Amino acid sequence: MKNYNKVSISQDSRTELHDKLSLTGAEISINNLPAGTCVPFVHSHKNNEEIYFILSGKGKAVVDGETIELISGDWIRISPQGQRQFFASDDEPISFICIQVKENSLEQYTMEDGIMHN
Amino acid sequence: MKNYNKVSISQDSRTELHDKLSLTGAEISINNLPAGTCVPFVHSHKNNEEIYFILSGKGKAVVDGETIELISGDWIRISPQGQRQFFASDDEPISFICIQVKENSLEQYTMEDGIMHN
Repeated sequence: MKNYNKVSISQDSRTELHDKLSLTGAEISINNLPAGTCVPFVHSHKNNEEIYFILSGKGKAVVDGETIELISGDWIRISPQGQRQFFASDDEPISFICIQVKENSLEQYTMEDGIMHN
Repeated sequence: MKNYNKVSISQDSRTELHDKLSLTGAEISINNLPAGTCVPFVHSHKNNEEIYFILSGKGKAVVDGETIELISGDWIRISPQGQRQFFASDDEPISFICIQVKENSLEQYTMEDGIMHN
């Protein structure tokens, strides 16, 4: 079996990668909100940390009632218990990825976890 | 303490987010390779799955000796044991993010892990 999987992503409103890429340590979604729209609910998580990256456009997140303005290039980490909702701006869409991982699951990384082969 | 952290990322050759965002379930790096250059080593991992997303430009990955052409919008998952190296194309730079998570660490996600608040 090959040690990799690859996909290319379209401009659908939401694409989930867990099954497409056979992910085992994360779920990743790509989300596109038209101008003036929002994710239609507030949510938090039981166990999972979420990391959001703004690919293009602008909008805002509201976390525990606090508004955080977001533009292309911004990264935001939200603890499981943070109550969050995402909005496109009134006049621009927003595209973002959301990375969902189990809080405190990373034990070692980069130099500690890596093995060099040349 | 706030339930979130935010950063905006520049065009440095490599930016690591673990400490900047107080991540606990992933390490994430943003990488920019000029045209004609590559990551100067082949590596694999002890425990960590890696997920790469091509932000812009083009290039290739070589995984276990197999060449995978990459362009903006591509996603690729690589198992810990995959021996990998990343290259920009000869005439274009490549920018990509690398998400490092512990293999098999995700227990539940999205609807199973989420809690709705309205």
